[in-house]
Amino acid sequence: MKWGKRMKKVINGSITTPKGYKAAGVSCGIKKNASPDLAMIVSDCVANSAGVFTQNLVKGHSLLKSMEHICFDDGGRTKVVVINSGNANACVGAQGDEDAVSVVKQTSKLACCQQNEIIFGSTGVIGVKMDMTSLSSGIKKAHKKLSANGGHDAELAIMTTDLIPKEVSVKIELAGKEVTISGMAKGSGMIHPDMATMIGIITTDAAVSRKMLNQALKTTVKKTFNRVSVDGDTSVCDMVIILANGMSQAPLIDTESFDFELFSTALTFVCTQLSKMIAKDGEGATKLINVMVNNALTSEDAYKAAVSIAKSPLVKTAIFGEDANWGRILTAAGYSGAIFNPNKVNVSIGDLMMCKHGVGLEFDEARAKEILSKDEVSLTIDLIEGTHNDHVWTCDFSHGYIEINGSYRS
Amino acid sequence: MKWGKRMKKVINGSITTPKGYKAAGVSCGIKKNASPDLAMIVSDCVANSAGVFTQNLVKGHSLLKSMEHICFDDGGRTKVVVINSGNANACVGAQGDEDAVSVVKQTSKLACCQQNEIIFGSTGVIGVKMDMTSLSSGIKKAHKKLSANGGHDAELAIMTTDLIPKEVSVKIELAGKEVTISGMAKGSGMIHPDMATMIGIITTDAAVSRKMLNQALKTTVKKTFNRVSVDGDTSVCDMVIILANGMSQAPLIDTESFDFELFSTALTFVCTQLSKMIAKDGEGATKLINVMVNNALTSEDAYKAAVSIAKSPLVKTAIFGEDANWGRILTAAGYSGAIFNPNKVNVSIGDLMMCKHGVGLEFDEARAKEILSKDEVSLTIDLIEGTHNDHVWTCDFSHGYIEINGSYRS
Repeated sequence: MKWGKRMKKVINGSITTPKGYKAAGVSCGIKKNASPDLAMIVSDCVANSAGVFTQNLVKGHSLLKSMEHICFDDGGRTKVVVINSGNANACVGAQGDEDAVSVVKQTSKLACCQQNEIIFGSTGVIGVKMDMTSLSSGIKKAHKKLSANGGHDAELAIMTTDLIPKEVSVKIELAGKEVTISGMAKGSGMIHPDMATMIGIITTDAAVSRKMLNQALKTTVKKTFNRVSVDGDTSVCDMVIILANGMSQAPLIDTESFDFELFSTALTFVCTQLSKMIAKDGEGATKLINVMVNNALTSEDAYKAAVSIAKSPLVKTAIFGEDANWGRILTAAGYSGAIFNPNKVNVSIGDLMMCKHGVGLEFDEARAKEILSKDEVSLTIDLIEGTHNDHVWTCDFSHGYIEINGSYRS
Repeated sequence: MKWGKRMKKVINGSITTPKGYKAAGVSCGIKKNASPDLAMIVSDCVANSAGVFTQNLVKGHSLLKSMEHICFDDGGRTKVVVINSGNANACVGAQGDEDAVSVVKQTSKLACCQQNEIIFGSTGVIGVKMDMTSLSSGIKKAHKKLSANGGHDAELAIMTTDLIPKEVSVKIELAGKEVTISGMAKGSGMIHPDMATMIGIITTDAAVSRKMLNQALKTTVKKTFNRVSVDGDTSVCDMVIILANGMSQAPLIDTESFDFELFSTALTFVCTQLSKMIAKDGEGATKLINVMVNNALTSEDAYKAAVSIAKSPLVKTAIFGEDANWGRILTAAGYSGAIFNPNKVNVSIGDLMMCKHGVGLEFDEARAKEILSKDEVSLTIDLIEGTHNDHVWTCDFSHGYIEINGSYRS
């Protein structure tokens, strides 16, 4: 495919960079320390939307309400996204559902739109009732403060234990029109506030049918956000939402056209960058680890082995300690359930092969140390069984993780 | 069932406490620091034996040799068990198989027995060739030193990062004869020496047919050693071996008799104690955690939920921090794959219920703190779906774990 001038261009931006979006981030008192805890994003005209939601059997009350509004298979129509941090609105019974309805009602009145055009997300501590007085005042405050420059503030308001904001914007050209795709995310793990591995919001001024938007998001999330593992725990509030309001004036994408491919490629770039930022900013993380499994017999085998290695505390602590312990990589693949012949596999850390056809090689320890001292490390296992590759981004396990997670509620 | 005088009696003892066993533990130079690294256990007459071996696709060369000698389905006949620590004899290619054969040959000559009457286990660093000069000298040294008091020394020689020796002995009475069952184990996790989650050796002077010994071990291991999770990683060298030499003069157990039940109960007690010791002595552990899942729809659901909670780094760090974060327990059950209704479940820490029918309760924080300050903590989730219960022992995740596993090869 020739990109030419239509190629993506990465720019400094936020979720209000695409045309027709306003946002705000405010502090309303849900978090104890007066840091921003409520984000609102509004599209001037109602946008086509799609979403993916946590697979956890336990789901937050806010998330369940949003799932009603964006049908998993068909996508939805969305005007406003409200997200609070500091309280997950989860496991509090009927009150949680009522609170979600109340937020949706209040917001739809303020924004003059249908209730099912509101998406509501909550991230934070689980099992504690929402302070609705604070939340209500926050919604009013945020609505008043909405601006085309408010994207970055919105990002700050959804962060929990994140150390760095996560925002990516790219521009592409569709039929002579400039189209922007922007994303923001929070990640980090699940601590104070608790239970909030990730929320991602993507805005674009492209015009995309609900069907194609849904297809693009599902395909992209599988390759990006679903390839991130910080601690293997999945939360009750995870969601990724995309809004496409069409205000770029670019023609509607409603088939698997060249423009759809271009749009999908740019979307994948945005989500890839956000995913890597989430892994790298994992709780206590000092390094980004890219686990690559090559030449597996099936795609399932490749995935199983990659996830198993990425979740192994032994692998993650070894990388933290900058210790070239390739045996742990092979062992984690060995118990993953993936089918392979241990006498055929090669294992490398960075570009340094340490195990060939299942047998340990003598290797240059100084070179290994150099590779492991970088803040991005790749671990590769080549199963030499077939043609399927996969990968998972993760981070190392450090004292910081224990520190953060040993005392989250205080 | 009435136990009466035949009831089990726990005694101070070692694997040489049952009649007709000798053992030794020596230092032969495989470990760098001159600590004991070779154990030998010999039964005066060839014993019936059974074994369970790691399910990891990657298997050590010594373990593979032992698997030939104890057929998983039929059990075997064993006179000598040799175990070295400090080197796993794994992933070193054909040399590793040759070294295993060489150990078996040398030992069978010394002990005047068949080669297939030797069990050989190795635990330690992976991917490094065995120092056979040291190992050979160690075998000679251990054989010379064999004694009926050598059981404890053998235990010391198989330990790696274990902080405390793990030995349990019980006596029962079978047909008027006193029968002893003793066990020893190493556990702790997988570090320097690497890749050695657990090895367990059980000796008894009971007379048990290979078929019934095999049945007793499989059933018991499922309930005990297979219910321990330190870090979710399974190693390439895990094995549990039982030897029954019949020297108590008690009649042969070869059916599912009352004596078989009594024997199995005592064996379960031994393995339970060893399992709890392994979990409690997990790398860096400060607490033993017993995760209990009650009233699941199926036994698979109960097991899945228990393992998921026991493996969750978020649960394990919260317990380390003595933080009553019950939401993490529910969340880990939620992504376990077990089927349940989140609006029905109860969650308790110790005897303090914190979540009833999916809704967080207000609870006494001081009482919670008191429960969590103990060195044994139970976490219970009641799914209220069916009648199946299961449990897994694990330990908390502390700074010590990171410390130990961040630098194992140095």
